[in-house]
Order: sequence, then C-alpha cells, then structure tokens
Amino acid sequence: MTDAAAVDATLPGAPADGAARAVVENVRPHVDHGRFAVKRVAGDRVDVEADCFTDGHDVVACRLRWRRDGDAQWNESPMEPIGNDRWRGTFRPEATGGYRYTVTAWVDAFLSWRHDFARRNDADDRRVAAQVGAALAAAAAERASGADRAALERWSRDLAAPQDDARLRELALDEALAAIAVRHPDRRHATTYPVAFPLLVERERARFSTWYELFPRSCGTAGAHGTFADCAQRLPAIARMGFDVVYLPPIHPIGRVRRKGPNNALVAGPDDVGSPWAIGAAEGGHTATHPQLGTLADFRALVARARELSMEIALDIAFQCAPDHPYVAAHPEWFRHRPDGSVQYAENPPKKYQDIYPFDFESRAWPALWRELHDVFAFWIGEGVRVFRVDNPHTKAFPFWEWVIARLRERHPDVIFLSEAFTRPKVMHRLAKLGFSQSYTYFTWRNTKRELTEYFTELTAGPGREYFRPNCWPNTPDILPENLQVGGRAAFMARLVLAATLAANYGIYGPAFELGEAVPREPGAEEYLDSEKYALRDWPVDREDSLAPFIARVNAARRDNPALQRDDNLAFLETDNEQLIAYTKTAEDGSGVLVVVNLDPHHVQSGWLVLDPGHLGVDESRPFQVHDLLSGARFLWSGRRNFVQLDPARAPAHLFRIRRRVRTERDFDYFL
Amino acid sequence: MTDAAAVDATLPGAPADGAARAVVENVRPHVDHGRFAVKRVAGDRVDVEADCFTDGHDVVACRLRWRRDGDAQWNESPMEPIGNDRWRGTFRPEATGGYRYTVTAWVDAFLSWRHDFARRNDADDRRVAAQVGAALAAAAAERASGADRAALERWSRDLAAPQDDARLRELALDEALAAIAVRHPDRRHATTYPVAFPLLVERERARFSTWYELFPRSCGTAGAHGTFADCAQRLPAIARMGFDVVYLPPIHPIGRVRRKGPNNALVAGPDDVGSPWAIGAAEGGHTATHPQLGTLADFRALVARARELSMEIALDIAFQCAPDHPYVAAHPEWFRHRPDGSVQYAENPPKKYQDIYPFDFESRAWPALWRELHDVFAFWIGEGVRVFRVDNPHTKAFPFWEWVIARLRERHPDVIFLSEAFTRPKVMHRLAKLGFSQSYTYFTWRNTKRELTEYFTELTAGPGREYFRPNCWPNTPDILPENLQVGGRAAFMARLVLAATLAANYGIYGPAFELGEAVPREPGAEEYLDSEKYALRDWPVDREDSLAPFIARVNAARRDNPALQRDDNLAFLETDNEQLIAYTKTAEDGSGVLVVVNLDPHHVQSGWLVLDPGHLGVDESRPFQVHDLLSGARFLWSGRRNFVQLDPARAPAHLFRIRRRVRTERDFDYFL
Repeated sequence: MTDAAAVDATLPGAPADGAARAVVENVRPHVDHGRFAVKRVAGDRVDVEADCFTDGHDVVACRLRWRRDGDAQWNESPMEPIGNDRWRGTFRPEATGGYRYTVTAWVDAFLSWRHDFARRNDADDRRVAAQVGAALAAAAAERASGADRAALERWSRDLAAPQDDARLRELALDEALAAIAVRHPDRRHATTYPVAFPLLVERERARFSTWYELFPRSCGTAGAHGTFADCAQRLPAIARMGFDVVYLPPIHPIGRVRRKGPNNALVAGPDDVGSPWAIGAAEGGHTATHPQLGTLADFRALVARARELSMEIALDIAFQCAPDHPYVAAHPEWFRHRPDGSVQYAENPPKKYQDIYPFDFESRAWPALWRELHDVFAFWIGEGVRVFRVDNPHTKAFPFWEWVIARLRERHPDVIFLSEAFTRPKVMHRLAKLGFSQSYTYFTWRNTKRELTEYFTELTAGPGREYFRPNCWPNTPDILPENLQVGGRAAFMARLVLAATLAANYGIYGPAFELGEAVPREPGAEEYLDSEKYALRDWPVDREDSLAPFIARVNAARRDNPALQRDDNLAFLETDNEQLIAYTKTAEDGSGVLVVVNLDPHHVQSGWLVLDPGHLGVDESRPFQVHDLLSGARFLWSGRRNFVQLDPARAPAHLFRIRRRVRTERDFDYFL
Repeated sequence: MTDAAAVDATLPGAPADGAARAVVENVRPHVDHGRFAVKRVAGDRVDVEADCFTDGHDVVACRLRWRRDGDAQWNESPMEPIGNDRWRGTFRPEATGGYRYTVTAWVDAFLSWRHDFARRNDADDRRVAAQVGAALAAAAAERASGADRAALERWSRDLAAPQDDARLRELALDEALAAIAVRHPDRRHATTYPVAFPLLVERERARFSTWYELFPRSCGTAGAHGTFADCAQRLPAIARMGFDVVYLPPIHPIGRVRRKGPNNALVAGPDDVGSPWAIGAAEGGHTATHPQLGTLADFRALVARARELSMEIALDIAFQCAPDHPYVAAHPEWFRHRPDGSVQYAENPPKKYQDIYPFDFESRAWPALWRELHDVFAFWIGEGVRVFRVDNPHTKAFPFWEWVIARLRERHPDVIFLSEAFTRPKVMHRLAKLGFSQSYTYFTWRNTKRELTEYFTELTAGPGREYFRPNCWPNTPDILPENLQVGGRAAFMARLVLAATLAANYGIYGPAFELGEAVPREPGAEEYLDSEKYALRDWPVDREDSLAPFIARVNAARRDNPALQRDDNLAFLETDNEQLIAYTKTAEDGSGVLVVVNLDPHHVQSGWLVLDPGHLGVDESRPFQVHDLLSGARFLWSGRRNFVQLDPARAPAHLFRIRRRVRTERDFDYFL
C-alpha cells in the first residue's frame, strides 16, 4: 500500500480524517443545542441518547463521555442500542457543579468481524476470516496490557493456527475473549459529537423544596413591629408543618420618600410602615437590615435557628430603590434621568410607580452596577443565606442574570435562585435557561382540569423539563386568586394539594393561607384587603380552624414519598367527571402515588378513573391497596377502572400511596 | 454620568456589551442547528421565524439578515410579530448557490418611547416625554442623511418647542415622521443570533422533476445491442409522455471477470451482456463508454438531443469495480485485501458478491481516492451531464459525500444529485443532509391508506421537509413490488398517480412500467423475470395497451399545476372508506388540486370525503367545480362533504383541479 495520504493531505475542504466513518447526531437532552445547561441535582440519573451509525453494514460502538468542569479526564459510560440506530447511556453525577457530556462513536472492526463471522456458512470463508481475526486480536493486544494483552496474544495465535472448523467457530465466537477485545477497541477514527453539552448539577433542594413566605414584621405581639427574634419564635411551628424554606420579603430599611400607605394608598401617614419592596433609606440599602427588625447579628441568629430546625431562610432580592436609597445620591449614573434632571421612576404608561427607581441596565456604567449587585448577593451569602427569591427578574437585563448567577455559583454551587417572573412564557423560560434554579408559574390561575392538565403536561413533558423547575404558589402577598376568594376552605385544601403534588417545589404565603384569608381589597381585585405589603398584620396563628394540621399531613406525604420529589414523572389519568382530576407520580424505586382532587369546592363529585396497574408496579390480576395519606383510609382496588367520590365538605382530595401486595414466607399477605 | 465602564471593563466572565438587552432564540428553519443547510430552489420563498424579546416592556425591533456566500453585504428583510414573542420574515433568493441567514434584534428606544407616549394620559407627562422624544429624533437625525435628516431635525426642534397639548400629541405620534425615524434606528446594542444558518438554493428541477429510467442497450432493433443513437430515437416519445429527466444505468464497459448471466446466474455465457453495475474492463472504467453503446461523441449527441426536447440525461454513478476494472491493478491501495493477498469482494455474510470490488474508504490513500471519484463526476459534468443518480451511496463513507457534493456544487451549482439509498431511515436522512438534492423513499412499499398517510405526513411535515426531497418510484429495475404483481393495470395507474401527486419528484423504470410488466423471477420474489439488469430486452413500446397516454395526462397535470410541483403543501382529507385516499395540494398563487385514489385495484369503491372549501380558496356557501384532469369530467360540488366513486376497471383515480367560480361583468359565471 502506497502512502498516498501524505501526498494528498491538502485536499481542499476535506476533513482531517476522511476515514472517520461513524456518525453521531441528534444528541439529547440539550437546551438550545448547548447554549444553556440541562439541569439536574446531585445523585440524579442523567440519560443521554444519540443516533450513532455508519455507512454499509459495519458495526458501530459508542460511549457516553462526561466530566465535571475542571477535570482533565473524561469519564465514559456504555451506551446500548434502543432501536432505529438510537443509543442510550447513563451517568449519575454525585457532586454539585458544572459538567459537560458528549457522545463518541467509531466503526468497530472487531465487532464487525465477529458479527460477520457468526453469519458465515462456508468453512473456507471461516478459515480466511480466522486469519483476519487473528490480525485484529493481535492489534487489540498491542493496545492492551497485563492479562488482557496475554489473552489476546494467545487468541491471535490460536486463530492463526490450523484448526478444525467446529473448534474454530467456538474459538472465534468465544464470549469471554470477545469481552476482552471489546475493552481495547481501535478508536483512531472515532467521531466525537462536536458539542460537549453543559449540565448544571445543583443540590437536591433545587428539585424538591417546600416554601413558607412570612413577613417577620408581623411576628410581633400585641400589634408591635415584629423582629428577627419574634420571627425565630415562629419557626418551630413552621417546621412542624413540614416546610424547609422560610422566605422573607425584603428585610432592608424602607424608603420614606413617597412611601405608600395601607392598601397601597399614595400618601402614607407618619406611622405607616411602607412596603418592604421600597428598598433603601438613610439607614442603608440592600446590605442593611431594617432597624426595627434587628441587627445583622439578630439576622444571623435567625438563620442559625432555622438551620437547627432543618430549614433555610430565603431572602428576597429586589433590585430597585426607594428615592432615598443611598445608591441614588452615590451613583446617579446607575439610573436614568428625566429632561429636568430628576431620576426616572418606574412606569408602564399610564401607570406610574413614583416610589420606585429602577436601575438603568443600559447605563454606560453597567459593569460597576453589575459588580455592586453581585456583591449584594455575595454579602448575604456571607451571612449564611443559600436560597434567594428574586423579585421581578424579567425587568432587569437578561445578560446580567446569566453573568451574576454563573459567577455566584462558581464559588457557591449550593446557592438556589427562584425566579419570580409572572410574565410572558418566552421570558419566563429564558430566565430559567439563564440559570435560575426554580421559577414561578401560571399555576395560580390554572383552575380547570383541562387547564391544569395542559399546563403541567407542557411543564413536565415539554422542552422546558430540562431546565424549567416549576415552583407553584396558590397565593402570594400580591395575589389572592379568585379560586380562593370564592371556594372556601375546600378550595384552600384543593389548591394546596394540587400545588404540593403537581410540582416538587411549591410554597404558600403563610399565615394568610393557613388561616383561609379570602377577602379582596375590592370586588374583582386580586389584592388582599389590608395587605401585609403595606401594613402590619396580627395573625391568630393558633386559631382552631387553621389548616396547619392538614398542611402538615400533605408535607409529610411529600417528604415520605420520593415520587412527589420530582417533576418528570407525572402522568394524568382519565376520569369520567370533569371536576375530578387524577394523576400518578412514580419514583425510580418503583413506589408511586395517585392523587385525585375534586375541583368543585361546593359539591360532592364522584366518578370512575382509569389507571394502568402495570405502570404503578402492581399486579393487574390481583387487588391492590390504595392508602390515603391525608385521611388514613385504605381501599382495596382491582383492575383498571375504580370508583372515587370526594366530598369537599370533608376532604376535596385523595393522596393515595399505592401499596403492592407482598406475600410473606408464612403466606400472610401485606401491602408494601 | 461617570465613565465607570472603562474602569470595570475587566469584569470577569461578562459579555462585551452588557447593555445588549434583546434576546434572539429559537430561529427556524434549521437543520441540526446549522450543521447542514436548509434546501430551497431559486425563486422559493424562505420564511424565517425567531423568538425576539427583551426584559421589561420595552419594544424590540428585529430584522432577518441574509446573504449569498461570498457577498460582503448582508441584505435585510423586515420581520413581523406573529404572537407570543415570535416574529416572521421572508426573503426570496433568486440565484442558485449557498446562502446564510440569521436574525438581529435590538431594544428600540424610539419605538418604546412612541408606544409609551400613546398611552400617557397626563398632559404634564406628555410635555416631559416630548423632550425625551426631541432628543431621540435628534439622535436619529445624526444617523440619517438628506431629506430624512432634515425632517428628523425639524421634528426634534418642534417636539422641543412649547406646544399646545393636542398639537403635541399629533406631532409626537405622526405616522410619517415615525416611519422616517424607524429607518434610522440605534442598533449599537443589537443582538445577532450567533449562528448564521446555511441555505442551499438549487435550480427548480431539484424540487420538481419527472424521471424515466431507460437501458440504452435495449433500444436496439431486432434484438441487436442498442446504442446511444438508438436511445436518441426514443427520446421524442419519452418527451411526449412528459418526462424531463432520462436516467441511464451505468454506460461504462462491463467487467468480464465473474460476469453474471441472465436472471443473476453465477456464470455467464460468452454472449451474455452482464450487469451495467459491474463497472470496468480492459476498455476502461468510470470515465469510458461501453464500446457497444458508442463513443463519447455519440453520448454528447444524445445529451444534446435530450436538451432539444427540454429533457436532461441523468447518469448513474456507481462507485464500485468489476474485478477487471483498471483501478484494481493501478490502485491496489484503494481496495481491501484478504489474507491471501486477493482483493476483498463485496459481501454481507452469508451473501457474497464476488463480481464486485468495493472501494475501501478506510484506506490510508483516501485523499487520492476521493480526488479520483470527484474527477469522475467532473468528467461527466464536462460532457454536459447535470443530473446524477448515485447508486447505493449508503455503502460509501458519509464524509466523502459531503465533501464531493460541496466541491462539485461550488463550480456547478446546477448539478442535481439523487440518492439511491433504500436503507435505514437515519442513514437516508443523513445522506440528504450531506447534500443530496433528492432521495429514494419507501414509497415503493407503502400501500395502505394508513401507511401512505403516515409516511407522507412524516416526509412533508416532519423535520426532513427542510432537507429531504422525496423522489418516488413505483418500480425500479431491481424492484417489481407485490402491488404491481397482483393488481393489474389498475394498480399501475393508481401507483403512478400516487407517486406523481404525493411527491413533486417521481420516476418510473420505463418500458417495463408503461407496458405493465408484472412477472417476478419466481413466486415471492421482487425481481423481474428476465431482468434487463442482466440481459437485453426488446420492448414493444408501441403496443396498444401501453400506459403512455395515461402517463402523459398525469405528467401534463403536473406541468400545468404549480400545486403539484412542491412537497410542503400536502394535506390529507378524511374519507369514510379505507380504500379511498384523498389529499389536496395548494400553490402559493392559491390554485389547488385534489386527488382521490382507489387503493383497491379489484373493486369499485365509493365514499364521502370531507374537505375544507376555504382551505382550497373556494366560497363554502356556493357550488364549486372540480375538473378531473385525467378523464376530463367536471363535477359541481358544494359544502364540506362530497361523494366519490372510482371503478378501477375504468380509472382508479381522480386528479381534480379545483375551479373557483368567477362572475364576469356580464353576470356570466365561469370557473377559473
């Protein structure tokens, strides 16, 4: 063979290795072809698929390659064919941080030889093929060492030696020797997919968290302004309800200039406390605490107390300023100015928000602004905060979020960011792509079976499932939705169960929810009357009718059932009643839950639901038990159609754990 | 404003322009995110969509950018919002060649100002806003020249001057002045999608062509070996049938070593002509003509004669060698060798093809091999050939095809390549992505309504629609499908209509098709008895029962109806009879056809079909005419449900042109 390659290496437009015959394409998952990271949490399984094939009928081999950012070496996982030239492989990143993965494939001369050898029906052909195999085994031996090398060298000699045909077949197709050869493939002409896709691995709470929103200033007694210390007193009760993130609205000094009064009145009285989102006053801005809440030391004590109770304090980061925020005087270049030289307040004509100055992200001084805002996060991380709820991120420049979240995560991979963007779908998705761990959703306004089914199918089965983690809220301090205004206690219970079981991340705006607060500021409004945003509230949290015990049962079910701790396992069931929504979630370990909710808060609803026992891991031919984790009731079901009836006056939902029948050694049945 | 940017330009990990707030994502169409080109033909409309948006409520503007490869300047087309932050723009490349397109967007300060101004309901606010507008108009004037500049300068002065509020509103929202300002936007902070997507523009025949396959050696008279000159004699009849591509199997010298006999017999007799795909003998290889067909000059005369008849000669490029091909001796390094030193013949164990030597694309000499194969194409391009049917491209290395097609197209953008790959779906799609203009399909084996509907929906509405142009064949010299063996004349007619109307590119293996040749080599086989692949055939092409007149009518309908000249406009209709398949195709000019085929060749079938008159451009409230271009019959239909009946003994298909009723000035109705 002449060395023509050397002569012709300058073939214009040709690839470096024209003999790289394997194709790798259509690698999944990815977000915008690798522009953004796919998200998982530590310990999650990452399944990667790709189309791998070559010309002709040669056999390809492929491997999933993955590594943690900063590692020099790639790890490799096997990939298995799943039909139609598609392959699947899996890895399980155990540490948080950034990763990359890709797929490599090659035409495997040894596997092709073996595939063909098994199909040869002519002894002469087999003799010739054995010589080819001997050469392949010898080449594999060159790439091996130790025992493998010795075995392959011996195999090569045996294949080359004259053999009886039956013995030759056995030798050539020897499984153990093939396994050794496969360990030392010839990958000189391998094709690696040109993109190494980014993966972001966060800690588990990014995927599974239970939020409780609380105004510390309302934790005082006898109408006094609450403090961090008062707030700490409330924590055990919140922990008993099963929450793990306690989220506080902004805790900073509140502006006095153009302060809003109760119910968003334009003019505040001298004793009015103002809105915590009007951040900044003479006492300080985004890194100061409100003097009436307490000192930084008091705040740290609160953070520590929460941690003792296995909870975390989440802070609200609202990047906007009251007119008397120190930034306004110190950094006029961070704000837009009106023709008269005054600072431009927030507006969306005809609406004006004269108490709020937005930052100007088109400022020429954007680098200094970005650095300062980064340092605000960094400051609170220094104070022990690891969870941030970000207020209206969709009104700040997208490139800033991508940069600041990545920078913070580099040093603090355990920080979780929740995007509070109630806006257009593309904008919400972009923020999730840019790095937010969790996102507010439209759940608050999705009421009917059809609305809920369509929306949660989109969230859990659409492209967003790789990067958009829904965090569902039945209410917020801004939003008392109509469903809660008109539905009474049953609506609160139903909306809680829906939020807590449709999504692995959910939260409630605390005392107002557990006490069933349902009066709007005026008819048709979505705002609370006497909203806590503008006034202190004295919540009778120990009231008899508090939903706290019910909430605790729901949250205990979430904690005990891995199926409720992820979003990608949701499957809706068919029911013959439009008021009954039913769905299952199943865990990797095979355990499952089945939820049925009566969406009508006023009437008993009943119907038949259709389920696939096999999908739930139970034997279709035998009865199985469903155990309602809310009421404690147990039912024996069988087959694919089963009857349910829900009286909203008692409980508008079943949260069933599916119990598989297990037979013990003594022939005693029990349900697992 | 301080120049903080200069101080902080080193912000680690930050983008070059943090003030670039607009987002461009989800640009469509694309093939593998720009790894391969989207395909169109000259004069086609290219619709491009993208999601463009920004933070907050500012207004974005965007443009579609496109240019021909080699051009220095980008062209820009407007984009219009189509809802949900999605935008669409269009361009129409008139010349063949490579193009690129992308999308750019920016936050438009002027449009945002105008949007807000229109919503301001306070005269004081409007006065302040007018000052802002004056500054924006002045800035726009700086970017403009000539009359635009003067108009904007005047506008700026007027906006800055004290004005009555009513006059100010009028002035600020003046449509004509806005149109001038929009022509001079501030694009300093524009975001351009980072990928400029490739587009391949071919000539129209890549999208719409009608193929006739013909063995020139069977064109002789009285059993003599046919010549190019004999073949030229057949061309007028083929042209009359409406074909525009006459495709010849390989025209090269045929190997004598291990030549096959009639019906693929292993041993040939001394007078057997062999298979044209066993290429190469002492007389030459891939750039020689078979001595009995004629000289290169004779071939050129055939090409010229076809051109006179508005047809093209397509050559078959089969990159493989007979054992006596001159390459085998001259370039042993292009072939794989067996342990005994002999050249490795083609095999797919247990099958062996000892008369064929494949090239070894893993040869170290691949660059020389690639260059030689490139030169084979280039040689025939030099002889006037512009259409190539490539034999079994899926058994040659993919990187070769990508390189050779791109190289050839650089100099000869009018060359069309048809991929004859009957293999796995991913492989067929890869070849189309790599550059083949058209592709063989599974049409040949898709018979039922469901099979046809699913397959053509996938082809015309799936991702392949951007790069995979089906070319459908009811038969080939290799394939006499079962449907033609058992269905008689009606099956031939039905399969022809299906191929010719489901796909804009189709072909038949000529005389065998028009004469209804239907006898397999043996029962259960798909091969023709006495296949022309291995023997001369004497076709009685003037036989009374030839389908030629029917074929001519079908092809005339294709020529006269733009709706039949593209693939992206297919829509299936509902019928209440599983044997009746119905579909429409509509053209950009609004004209449309409706095809109904009886898939049962043995029985009359009738039923109701459901159509949407509005989709076909006719008034639902009035009768419309359907005109069968095959039988000449005209029917008046009305409404959404109409009755059809097809007797396979007469005609198994309707090919209706939809005629819209037009009222003349004299109140005389006619159908357009």
